[in-house]
Amino acid sequence: MATLIVHENTSPVEDAEALRKACQGWGTDEKAIIRILGHRNATQRQLIRQAYEELYQEDLVKRLESELSGDFERAMYRWILDPADRDAVLANVAIKKSDYRVIIEISCIHSPEELLAARRAYRIRYKRSLEEDLAAHTTGDIRKAWSWLLLQLLVALVTAYRYGGDEINARLANSEADILHDAIKDKAFNHEEIIRIVSTRSKAQLMATINRYKDDHDISITKNLLGDPADELSSALRMAIRCITDSEKYYEKVLRNAINKAGTDEDALSRVVITRAEKDLKEIKEAYYKRNSVTLDHAVAKETSGDYKAFLLTLLGKEN
Amino acid sequence: MATLIVHENTSPVEDAEALRKACQGWGTDEKAIIRILGHRNATQRQLIRQAYEELYQEDLVKRLESELSGDFERAMYRWILDPADRDAVLANVAIKKSDYRVIIEISCIHSPEELLAARRAYRIRYKRSLEEDLAAHTTGDIRKAWSWLLLQLLVALVTAYRYGGDEINARLANSEADILHDAIKDKAFNHEEIIRIVSTRSKAQLMATINRYKDDHDISITKNLLGDPADELSSALRMAIRCITDSEKYYEKVLRNAINKAGTDEDALSRVVITRAEKDLKEIKEAYYKRNSVTLDHAVAKETSGDYKAFLLTLLGKEN
Repeated sequence: MATLIVHENTSPVEDAEALRKACQGWGTDEKAIIRILGHRNATQRQLIRQAYEELYQEDLVKRLESELSGDFERAMYRWILDPADRDAVLANVAIKKSDYRVIIEISCIHSPEELLAARRAYRIRYKRSLEEDLAAHTTGDIRKAWSWLLLQLLVALVTAYRYGGDEINARLANSEADILHDAIKDKAFNHEEIIRIVSTRSKAQLMATINRYKDDHDISITKNLLGDPADELSSALRMAIRCITDSEKYYEKVLRNAINKAGTDEDALSRVVITRAEKDLKEIKEAYYKRNSVTLDHAVAKETSGDYKAFLLTLLGKEN
Repeated sequence: MATLIVHENTSPVEDAEALRKACQGWGTDEKAIIRILGHRNATQRQLIRQAYEELYQEDLVKRLESELSGDFERAMYRWILDPADRDAVLANVAIKKSDYRVIIEISCIHSPEELLAARRAYRIRYKRSLEEDLAAHTTGDIRKAWSWLLLQLLVALVTAYRYGGDEINARLANSEADILHDAIKDKAFNHEEIIRIVSTRSKAQLMATINRYKDDHDISITKNLLGDPADELSSALRMAIRCITDSEKYYEKVLRNAINKAGTDEDALSRVVITRAEKDLKEIKEAYYKRNSVTLDHAVAKETSGDYKAFLLTLLGKEN
């Protein structure tokens, strides 16, 4: 469930006018901006952008970028974008930074249709396809960052259009649990087969296969995939499986690492809060509390400050 | 341009009733079936199917399958399906027969949105994704049919969602023409790079790269890719490039081979006529006449017979 507290029956024109006022004159009224945009859902935010554009012949996103700064600016910029467009931006930044985590999140946590929407938005924004930019990573200097097989995995995950239904084939789950076990055995990873199964099977089918694996071998496949921490391919495969099988637990860990890191990883923190506030941040908060015996709100309040803090707490469900 | 002569302002209910009549009693009135369905576009055919289902609680496709036989039945079955659904069926049959040509046609000739529609139809019909079934080809006995790299190419082509616009990057075309040339040089094919470029770049970008290749080296890339005829990967790459750069010429050759083959390849003949009759069969016919100094209608009439012949000629633009 969402943590975002949406104020219903608002007027996009009034919101646009109030945002304009908050941006005008000496100094910006960040609190007003948070009060408005921190309580609007994706559709409302798009309507506000449209109204703002019509009223002032100016892109609200650009205006906010010039008015705000630092982590707050970056968070607000991502928040105001349409979710599919935001995914496109996140993916593009991730490719440039050789950060495969975001690529795996988008391709394994999203529904097949959401992933498709992100790919469509990417094409519109960058006039290239997402997999095109990913695959072009094999050339030039950046090639070193990702091994060829890791790249194969990422491209396969991103281009998949998995069957989205619940029907599973129990016999197939059985045989592919064996294939996976053989492929992992003795650390002589047959990565091609693991990549194929993880990147093409439906979520329901993969769950069945992974459960079968656990039943047959009394150990989870993610534990069996634990290898050399420097082995990025194994890490990426484990991450993909975790994203597919239990995304809430996965996000809890991302948040925990982001908060516990010396200096706090604001990028990761913002990403999870912003991309999940309208979806399942409530469950992620519960998982966080269970694991850390402290509420996520409390942890966020402790590690952040100023407008950035106020904005995150608003998205986490605090009423202004 | 299409060759199909569409009769406008027809009534789906009247058509369904006439088809019912043609299927009833002793013997089937194939001519009536051709007269109706051979002059209806995809939308009309779907409306007829719906009307038939409502009137008689029976699937028209199933009924026709039981009434007709041989090449005529197979052609009519494919014709009556919605184009995306037909692609799904063609792709499924192709995977089972390890026939990569159809996979390349669907992925390289279709627009990005048409390819997506075919993938969506595949998921609905088979409750698995197209790339899932393709990739599963790596396992078991069928593995021998396609090499691992050939399969990588096919999966990459099928899962691509290329940028569909006209914008190109001339510098990139230049550098990738060099990459392709280096990769092909001395037959020491660096297939990974060729696969990446052919499977991810937009059609416009690929055209620019391939033209640049020709300008720089006075030979087309497809000629340079000519290798051992048993080398299926090179053949598949050549085919993909030809499908992307000049699909009419590609189809002309498919038709020529199908017609000239001892015994005629009815599957290929039907496939081209049926999938292109509503699109560009007119241009394909012109290319055929140019290359063979005989009209396609004449060649088809010579090599086929009976209802099958009558049906193909109708789709080729003959008025009954």
